[in-house]
Amino acid sequence: MAAARPRFLIIADGEFGPLTSKTANSCIRYFPERVVAVLDRSHAGQTVQDVLGFGGSIPVVDDFEPGLTRGATAVLVGIAPPGGRLPPEWRAWLKRALVHRLEIWSGLHTFIGDDPELGALARERGVRILDVRKPPAELPIADGRAAEVDAYVILSVGTDCNVGKMTAQLELRDALVRRGHRASFVATGQTGIFIEGWGIAVDAVVADFIAGAAEQLVVQGAADADIVLVEGQGSLIHPGYSGVTLGLLHGACPDALILCHQATREYIGDYHGRGPWVRIPPLAEVVELYERAAAPVRPTRVIGIALNTFDLDETRARAAVARASEDTRLPTTDPVRFGSEPLVEAVVREALATR
Amino acid sequence: MAAARPRFLIIADGEFGPLTSKTANSCIRYFPERVVAVLDRSHAGQTVQDVLGFGGSIPVVDDFEPGLTRGATAVLVGIAPPGGRLPPEWRAWLKRALVHRLEIWSGLHTFIGDDPELGALARERGVRILDVRKPPAELPIADGRAAEVDAYVILSVGTDCNVGKMTAQLELRDALVRRGHRASFVATGQTGIFIEGWGIAVDAVVADFIAGAAEQLVVQGAADADIVLVEGQGSLIHPGYSGVTLGLLHGACPDALILCHQATREYIGDYHGRGPWVRIPPLAEVVELYERAAAPVRPTRVIGIALNTFDLDETRARAAVARASEDTRLPTTDPVRFGSEPLVEAVVREALATR
Repeated sequence: MAAARPRFLIIADGEFGPLTSKTANSCIRYFPERVVAVLDRSHAGQTVQDVLGFGGSIPVVDDFEPGLTRGATAVLVGIAPPGGRLPPEWRAWLKRALVHRLEIWSGLHTFIGDDPELGALARERGVRILDVRKPPAELPIADGRAAEVDAYVILSVGTDCNVGKMTAQLELRDALVRRGHRASFVATGQTGIFIEGWGIAVDAVVADFIAGAAEQLVVQGAADADIVLVEGQGSLIHPGYSGVTLGLLHGACPDALILCHQATREYIGDYHGRGPWVRIPPLAEVVELYERAAAPVRPTRVIGIALNTFDLDETRARAAVARASEDTRLPTTDPVRFGSEPLVEAVVREALATR
Repeated sequence: MAAARPRFLIIADGEFGPLTSKTANSCIRYFPERVVAVLDRSHAGQTVQDVLGFGGSIPVVDDFEPGLTRGATAVLVGIAPPGGRLPPEWRAWLKRALVHRLEIWSGLHTFIGDDPELGALARERGVRILDVRKPPAELPIADGRAAEVDAYVILSVGTDCNVGKMTAQLELRDALVRRGHRASFVATGQTGIFIEGWGIAVDAVVADFIAGAAEQLVVQGAADADIVLVEGQGSLIHPGYSGVTLGLLHGACPDALILCHQATREYIGDYHGRGPWVRIPPLAEVVELYERAAAPVRPTRVIGIALNTFDLDETRARAAVARASEDTRLPTTDPVRFGSEPLVEAVVREALATR
């Protein structure tokens, strides 16, 4: 998979936006040069920059043809609806893609390759369907091997889904590598796998194997690195996904945590349209919640805060960073906006202290 | 499934014992009249009573034939090895069962019906293979519906696996029903499903759907009951299974918890042969850990302790119950040994208080 460098037409029909198309947006942030167009009829005619505030002149188109004429060799399913299931109206798009011999890259829970019609069509045309959420056939039950790697392991955790846990770790990895450290990023979700070319979507494994999958990934990530940055998932206070979060925390046996939060978010994301349900506690309480949950299995500490301030102006963003740092007494930054330096310094200091 | 009343030959070869064959033992406890024999070559010639201390004169046999001559109509896979995978040496037994037209009931993660050889043989012979751990095809992401049922919902939680979370709830259900209450038991694991005839093995669903499965089960269990007793799974401090435990806690939205513990256990079960790893904290700390983990989503309280004292003499068992009650200031009993009355009273009092 790492060898493949397709050029993507991203499908995000009706959903393309800063908060609604997480997978699409992260792919655009990390490999814009490989995205030829985004298909969303509701934003057709605009650029990606117009819709997201980044991404430059990549066009948003209203049909497959403009993508094809721009040289797309693959379709990337760029939204992850709750539950990850394939919306029925997308079937026609995907059939058309396969008929045009475009690869399909998907992170949905419903495996497109297992669909009788689409799978058969792909085989008939000799086109590859890549269901990145499909877990490996054999996974272990966690047995603590992740605690025994020599590398310094850091897991990002969050107050909610979609607050920047993957982005914080990718930015931190890049900053550490620029400083000359051997740092690896471990993808635990579909978007991270799209970006890195390897990993396991831990939310898609059979529940008994969440921690085992995390452990296997940490061991793999530590093979050639001194610092392993594991992408977190969900939140300990998210009623839908907390099991995945705790399994990842106990399986990865991290030496340290980085807590990620979106500065303006007060409630777990308006979830299944039911309105506010779970109020996000003060950050210092969330820090304590994660440290307490980890402690009986393997003690760990939050060593920094990654604050997502995309919807604040610069003055308010700087104030939010200062306030979070004051509330938690921890190094804080918005890694996308203000760089990862405070987190890099915390990581290097802590990693050295544990040698 | 509820209609089927097979007579079982239980396979527990090499593993039959008080702590090693959980599924077998629970089936024997709850439907001894339907068990014709247990197959374990290492204990052949003894009775189930000899090996477990209960179960009466059911024989332990060294081959299929004695089971067949006693009228077995089904084979029950009575051990659940770590990871739930089918030990290769069992394949021959299961083939022989199918050839003799015995149904196979299995709670393994590896679905026997999906095995090319065994599945084909079963279809060829027209014999049913029941993989009770196979999850339903469509599950929801949890959205809080479990919090809205009228019934009083109680979840059993534990310090570890295999401490009595299912048994505590089955005993409590029976005691409440004897007192005239409309109480239902909700099975969340393979043994509970064997006993009750319905349920979902929540450790076998895709990780994103743990809480959704719990929620769906609670809604179903509340349809005809005022008190719903949900079987807990794993432990918040068990590194392999904590994700399932937290997903169940957040998905079931229980009004109350019953904490289950084996009095003499100091460490999470000697796990994968790696020796002691996670020390079980004092019970009062475990109570706090569960209440804190639930609180951000939906506050709940531990209202009683179910203590498993099977390996203590009567004097020591009574002392252990008294000590646990003193440490936690909560009603405590060993439901199997001393009855469920203290828990029944706590449940009825609390359920009335919330009306």
